[in-house]
Amino acid sequence: MNDIPTYADVVAAAGRIAGPAVRTPLIHSPLLSERTGGRVFLKAETLQRTGSFKFRGAYNAVRALHAETAGGIVACSSGNHAQGVAEAARLAGLPATIVMPSDAPAVKRVRTAASGAEIVLYDRASEDRDAVAAGVLAERGGAMVHPYNDPQVIAGQGTAGLEIADDLEAAGIAPDVVLTPCSGGGLTAGIALALTERFPGVAIYGVEPVGFDDYARSLAAGRPVRNERLAGSICDALLSPEPGPIGFAINRERLAGAVSVTDEEALHAVGFAYEALRLVVEPGGAVALAALLEGRVDVAGRTVVIVLSGGNVGDEVLAEAVALHRASPSARRAQPSATAGAI
Amino acid sequence: MNDIPTYADVVAAAGRIAGPAVRTPLIHSPLLSERTGGRVFLKAETLQRTGSFKFRGAYNAVRALHAETAGGIVACSSGNHAQGVAEAARLAGLPATIVMPSDAPAVKRVRTAASGAEIVLYDRASEDRDAVAAGVLAERGGAMVHPYNDPQVIAGQGTAGLEIADDLEAAGIAPDVVLTPCSGGGLTAGIALALTERFPGVAIYGVEPVGFDDYARSLAAGRPVRNERLAGSICDALLSPEPGPIGFAINRERLAGAVSVTDEEALHAVGFAYEALRLVVEPGGAVALAALLEGRVDVAGRTVVIVLSGGNVGDEVLAEAVALHRASPSARRAQPSATAGAI
Repeated sequence: MNDIPTYADVVAAAGRIAGPAVRTPLIHSPLLSERTGGRVFLKAETLQRTGSFKFRGAYNAVRALHAETAGGIVACSSGNHAQGVAEAARLAGLPATIVMPSDAPAVKRVRTAASGAEIVLYDRASEDRDAVAAGVLAERGGAMVHPYNDPQVIAGQGTAGLEIADDLEAAGIAPDVVLTPCSGGGLTAGIALALTERFPGVAIYGVEPVGFDDYARSLAAGRPVRNERLAGSICDALLSPEPGPIGFAINRERLAGAVSVTDEEALHAVGFAYEALRLVVEPGGAVALAALLEGRVDVAGRTVVIVLSGGNVGDEVLAEAVALHRASPSARRAQPSATAGAI
Repeated sequence: MNDIPTYADVVAAAGRIAGPAVRTPLIHSPLLSERTGGRVFLKAETLQRTGSFKFRGAYNAVRALHAETAGGIVACSSGNHAQGVAEAARLAGLPATIVMPSDAPAVKRVRTAASGAEIVLYDRASEDRDAVAAGVLAERGGAMVHPYNDPQVIAGQGTAGLEIADDLEAAGIAPDVVLTPCSGGGLTAGIALALTERFPGVAIYGVEPVGFDDYARSLAAGRPVRNERLAGSICDALLSPEPGPIGFAINRERLAGAVSVTDEEALHAVGFAYEALRLVVEPGGAVALAALLEGRVDVAGRTVVIVLSGGNVGDEVLAEAVALHRASPSARRAQPSATAGAI
């Protein structure tokens, strides 16, 4: 395959991951539709194997590598890619080593280890992740699966977009707006590959944490621009230092833009998802929902798809989010108003 | 319509609820399939509007009543039917009064009130629910929507079965076994109406809390038999005193049987759903999953559908369930083993 994956690569990935991956549901939300004035669908990647979309790209990449490597799989990740790679390697019968920052959420470490992967910790502030990974590779051999700057990974993530397109088409619906969490840009690029092919008029937005808006600034600059910080948001899944060049080549052509939400807005969305939707979503996985709830993109009268990209949240963060949601003046908005009209 | 609803009534109900109701997903679970040796699908009614399947029957019944009543809607319920009726009445522009036991979970009271319903509390031990409801009806007029012994309610609940059938048929799959939570028998009867029509060979089991196994004993006796107790299980949604006669007439002909799970098994399933599936499920809604996890029905090599019927769980119960799940020796089974085979 070429360096820049194509729609055909996404279709091929869909064939490769069918079975091991969950075909996650696209769920119409009357509650969010009523609240926003749009027609809102949720793509629940929280229900994907390992609890995030990352299994798609990891499994696709590991399968593609399988013939090439007799050794194991090595990956760097704070948690969701880690779990995806660990589980994909387990299914392939290959050992996996994951290089994780020592401040990664405990729940993600535990779940990565549960798939049988070995975890090598490093300190974000004082150690260079790539150097640690290079050391592991030099010592043990094997192949590296990058969390986003890899054509097979992007093609794999794109299968989420393919499923959205298939489900909407089967219902005779064309989406107007798609909001997806965005960090290194792999998921966003994969979804953009699939959806702009099938629905040329769709407007796709990446959603980032405030202060980590490298994608918005990169789109404005026309080239990948780094974040100034590498840590400091509750959205631990969205702290990649800069857009990967492969995904950026896709996204700069296909995105309508990028918007940002604060940590508090992301937490509020986590609380809303738990309380009103009965879905467990992590902060980084809830930023697109947050952008919807905060009206960051105008969706009135439009059909909008919100990607909930991951659900690996620790107890304390979830409890904080639910408490924040319940205490906020907008909590009542999670419930239907008592004054709506007749059928 | 006749007293005993038919498959055609379920199809009519599906047309009536389309739009306001969520078409809930049927989700393949590789994790549960790997663990049980079956091919496991989850029908996530936790994602239904109001957080349980009850909205289906309530909305169908309220729509059917709408032309007949100028007054409001009255219902008796400990919580999930209450929320379903309250929301259906709100959408119909009708006032709703819900007669609830004073020991109903706070989360269910709050969510019922959020749809604008008035709540009248009674004491399970000292007051007669039906007398309280009759008093409300005499004073205010309107129409009563029974939680399960109503043909329109049963037909509405059957739409969940219709969706299961449509989704499986589209994938070219026939189910062998269906496990569904069972109390008054309305959901079970509706699902049985839909699924035995479409898949004559399917074995459908109701799942009850131990000590509240009126359905199992009624099936054995050939007539509705009462539970000895009216309270005392964590599965507050499954404490109906006895099978409703309409549903029983359907279920006695169409069920393969009924099995029971303990409160601890139900809680363990709630914890499993949260931890391994990222789904919020209440104890009564998790009993079919518990029956699967405990091996109550043999599913090895078979295609099985598990109905997760509701997700309105309070914080304390969820926390207890998660702690129980994590502490149990079987908690590790929630995670994939590290020794599975190759792709």
